[in-house]
Amino acid sequence: MIRDFQAPARRLSPKRQACIYVGMASLTEFSLDEAIAVLTRTPATLNALLRGLPNIWVRCKEGKDTWSAFDIVGHLIFGERTDWMPRARIILESGEARPFDPFDRFAQLKESQDKSLEQLLDDFARLRRENLAALRALNLQQEDLTRRGRHPALGVVTLSQLLATWAVHDLTHVHQLSRVMAHQYRDAVGPWSAYLGVLQCTGHRAP
Amino acid sequence: MIRDFQAPARRLSPKRQACIYVGMASLTEFSLDEAIAVLTRTPATLNALLRGLPNIWVRCKEGKDTWSAFDIVGHLIFGERTDWMPRARIILESGEARPFDPFDRFAQLKESQDKSLEQLLDDFARLRRENLAALRALNLQQEDLTRRGRHPALGVVTLSQLLATWAVHDLTHVHQLSRVMAHQYRDAVGPWSAYLGVLQCTGHRAP
Repeated sequence: MIRDFQAPARRLSPKRQACIYVGMASLTEFSLDEAIAVLTRTPATLNALLRGLPNIWVRCKEGKDTWSAFDIVGHLIFGERTDWMPRARIILESGEARPFDPFDRFAQLKESQDKSLEQLLDDFARLRRENLAALRALNLQQEDLTRRGRHPALGVVTLSQLLATWAVHDLTHVHQLSRVMAHQYRDAVGPWSAYLGVLQCTGHRAP
Repeated sequence: MIRDFQAPARRLSPKRQACIYVGMASLTEFSLDEAIAVLTRTPATLNALLRGLPNIWVRCKEGKDTWSAFDIVGHLIFGERTDWMPRARIILESGEARPFDPFDRFAQLKESQDKSLEQLLDDFARLRRENLAALRALNLQQEDLTRRGRHPALGVVTLSQLLATWAVHDLTHVHQLSRVMAHQYRDAVGPWSAYLGVLQCTGHRAP
């Protein structure tokens, strides 16, 4: 994939909407260091955004059967415990022979209900730190990133796809968090709602 | 607006998808302290998310005529300088008699081009701190929040709508930032793209 870096002189096809680094014709699509750079920052980002906020921002939702900011942090914790590194280990140890265990997207609704947001933020930061230390300790080489595993619904996936998804999964929940919070002031902004993209977002459910 | 606080027993209409605090039947739609709680946290949130990230996350865009993370921080700075507090002062000093000056949504593309991301993050944090100090110094009372001004395109708006919009505007750009960043790994996640809501988001342009 070719990426477009600040107002390039050349034209790119819309499909290639991307970023060309000056003097660099193309980039590999995934870099372990780039993914780790995002994964490392998410706990501090959520901490800065959420710790100490009034309950309207933390506990309110977009409606029935939707998640609050509190629920989202709980979900991220559950992913640290059961999804990303356990699946990376399955790929490295068993390849496609052993499909991943399915991930329970709603487990946190039970597990975190007796905790405070502050406890959840601390738990998430600790688990992420431990998982990234374990990831680095694997000392993955470029050829390891192409190793294959089997997702119970999606079929064959690679280790690099799993690790890229871990980072984008953080971003998808930052995306959701900002939307859930903005929703609480949907009426309060009055006519400006037409100008605020986050209020036009209807969520993006997985199929 | 009635708000729904964690799994309410009662049913709410979809329009009222909201948050009821236990023991609290309803809330006013806007609270100055709630808005300030969000506004206070945005500089640290962006700092935690962006400072020191590789350029792929900071300088890449979603395509031609779209914004990078760098551009978004520049836009937030321009808002601090020319939009929110200047407009609050126009409402308090002139009411509807003097329409707001139009806001240039693209000014930052020229103004910030010679700066580093780190400089922009520092500028944004300083300007926001100064603006919130100025806001607090106004010592606004409940009745001030209903004072009216005139938006050049939207018509009559109130001070509370302006201040609510300031907070939601932060959130709309956190929403956009997470989407722009996730876009860079659109291909790298492989078949997981179907599960990642942020990759289904096509942006939400103002009309």
